[in-house]
Amino acid sequence: MNIENLTCPLPIMDHDTIQLAHGAGGKLSSDLIDTLFLPRFSNKTLEAMEDQAVLDFQGERLSFSTDTFVVDPIFFPGGNIGELAINGTVNDVAMCGAEPLYLSVAFILEEGFPMEDLHQILISMENAANNAGVTIVTGDTKVVNKGSCDKIFINTTGIGVLNHDLNISSGNLQIGDRIIVSGTLADHGMAVMTSRKGLSFQTQVKSDTAPLNGLVKNMLNVSHGIHSMRDPTRGGAATTLNEFAKSSQVGISLIDNTIPVKPNVKGACEVLGIDPLYVANEGKLIAVVTENDAPIILETMKNHEFGKDAVIIGEVVAEHPGIVTMKTSLGANRIVDMPVGEQLPRIC
Amino acid sequence: MNIENLTCPLPIMDHDTIQLAHGAGGKLSSDLIDTLFLPRFSNKTLEAMEDQAVLDFQGERLSFSTDTFVVDPIFFPGGNIGELAINGTVNDVAMCGAEPLYLSVAFILEEGFPMEDLHQILISMENAANNAGVTIVTGDTKVVNKGSCDKIFINTTGIGVLNHDLNISSGNLQIGDRIIVSGTLADHGMAVMTSRKGLSFQTQVKSDTAPLNGLVKNMLNVSHGIHSMRDPTRGGAATTLNEFAKSSQVGISLIDNTIPVKPNVKGACEVLGIDPLYVANEGKLIAVVTENDAPIILETMKNHEFGKDAVIIGEVVAEHPGIVTMKTSLGANRIVDMPVGEQLPRIC
Repeated sequence: MNIENLTCPLPIMDHDTIQLAHGAGGKLSSDLIDTLFLPRFSNKTLEAMEDQAVLDFQGERLSFSTDTFVVDPIFFPGGNIGELAINGTVNDVAMCGAEPLYLSVAFILEEGFPMEDLHQILISMENAANNAGVTIVTGDTKVVNKGSCDKIFINTTGIGVLNHDLNISSGNLQIGDRIIVSGTLADHGMAVMTSRKGLSFQTQVKSDTAPLNGLVKNMLNVSHGIHSMRDPTRGGAATTLNEFAKSSQVGISLIDNTIPVKPNVKGACEVLGIDPLYVANEGKLIAVVTENDAPIILETMKNHEFGKDAVIIGEVVAEHPGIVTMKTSLGANRIVDMPVGEQLPRIC
Repeated sequence: MNIENLTCPLPIMDHDTIQLAHGAGGKLSSDLIDTLFLPRFSNKTLEAMEDQAVLDFQGERLSFSTDTFVVDPIFFPGGNIGELAINGTVNDVAMCGAEPLYLSVAFILEEGFPMEDLHQILISMENAANNAGVTIVTGDTKVVNKGSCDKIFINTTGIGVLNHDLNISSGNLQIGDRIIVSGTLADHGMAVMTSRKGLSFQTQVKSDTAPLNGLVKNMLNVSHGIHSMRDPTRGGAATTLNEFAKSSQVGISLIDNTIPVKPNVKGACEVLGIDPLYVANEGKLIAVVTENDAPIILETMKNHEFGKDAVIIGEVVAEHPGIVTMKTSLGANRIVDMPVGEQLPRIC
């Protein structure tokens, strides 16, 4: 026992070991970060709890984001861990309105991992980086003994540049703003889950993994009325919207029958008893925009390959600050709460 | 099978699965990178194969580096995985002569990992970041099922700024340059190895983990005659020097009795039959500098806490380009080859 330990005891927590739900993006993830991480690395940028840090670099604004991918299985309908790792960080870098430029890639490989699988993953990463227009400029490879990791884990960290002065952040929602989702929800998470459970549907459920930086660029070209943007990955749209509402201390009111979900995904959700609002997406964004600019932004999104199913799903209200509600088709209002954890780990 | 697969078959390699040596920083690591990675992510920055990318960002020069830490055990004499993860990336960012500014931190945690251990690691990271003067601005946490990773893996990625126009790189060695090492070799690797094997020596072998950005700054303050710098981690000094010689197409001639190794470390190396030149360091740098400036640089290094044992260990020669030799105490010359792999994985 050392002195640091004596002067800084472990904060009181509900669990004395790490639980799967600590990594699921829900309440337990927040607890872990708030109780253990933030007190250690306290600074304004980190405390903003965005998916990316917006930093000053020699007077210019830089977007910086990191994400590790541990998805299981590593090959799933619609993609694999490689393109997920590229698109995921491209999207996190872009969500503050930045143009992603450079990526680092770091691999942890398990001894015995098939070279052919690695080759396939690298090809997917190459294609994904080309599609997103980013350059992989540095990397690292670690190999661990068989059994010390599960096949392959990939970290990507990205740098982008902000070419505007906007503050696009979760704390910037304004009463009256419209909530736009760029397309159907729950595709990625259900693709991974159904492939794990061996479920088959008439139409295969496919991951929506895609780079959203082009879509973001087009949106910014037509409007500076974008207040918040985020890609609802772990924890799904419900988690993103709850974080928005809490961070801005405003209410969010959703309209049930506007939430776009593909029929086969809806079917899979019903079979597994999962609410699509809580399922991870990997090629969708939620944008909170001014009422005035909502029509032009929506139209611009619909003209883009990755925004063609964009739709307004609700608005920002003064009532119930910090809380997300949904008006059901019967006219009732229910609370859309933050999830405690996710049923399934390793969705991304 | 898809079309990409058909048009881009797996290159011919000696192994059809990943071997531990592919991650050891030696010849097999190079093979993997040259054969599988570089053909996919081909660009000038990545092909330079430095430990950091030097990038243009809005007309300014930016240093960008990533590293994943999988060291086993996670607590070892002289440090733990947390401070190693901070210092390791701080050093990689700094070795091009940059001032490290920002870090991202990404954790992979195994279900059941003790919260108290995580807390200790976070305290070490906080202290290490403060000591190095860098800010942790963004992060990510993933949790995987028990058995899917070994306790904790940490990725850190860093950004620094270059405040000069020098090209400090492995390809920049000049005939007549002096090779300086900042202190004793093999401390970190032998600390990890002896703690794993349960060996005890009269004086405990301790890791040298330390941030070197302050030392680098002082060196640049007194001289712009620095041609190359690198911290010899995985694969040790022998690997770094071989990469320098190969990259610059010059010879390197070392003098045996100048190589600084602590007596207890030397003892541990002898017991385990390991050459200290091939063992990982985590708080040392090798600098290749002009003959003229070598004295002032050396003196400056000796005045710094992390350079007090700095010494000239050899020089750059026109003979045997691409090859590192060592003059033994008997006057003979032996070749210091690149290692094929390391005996032990997970040293950092």
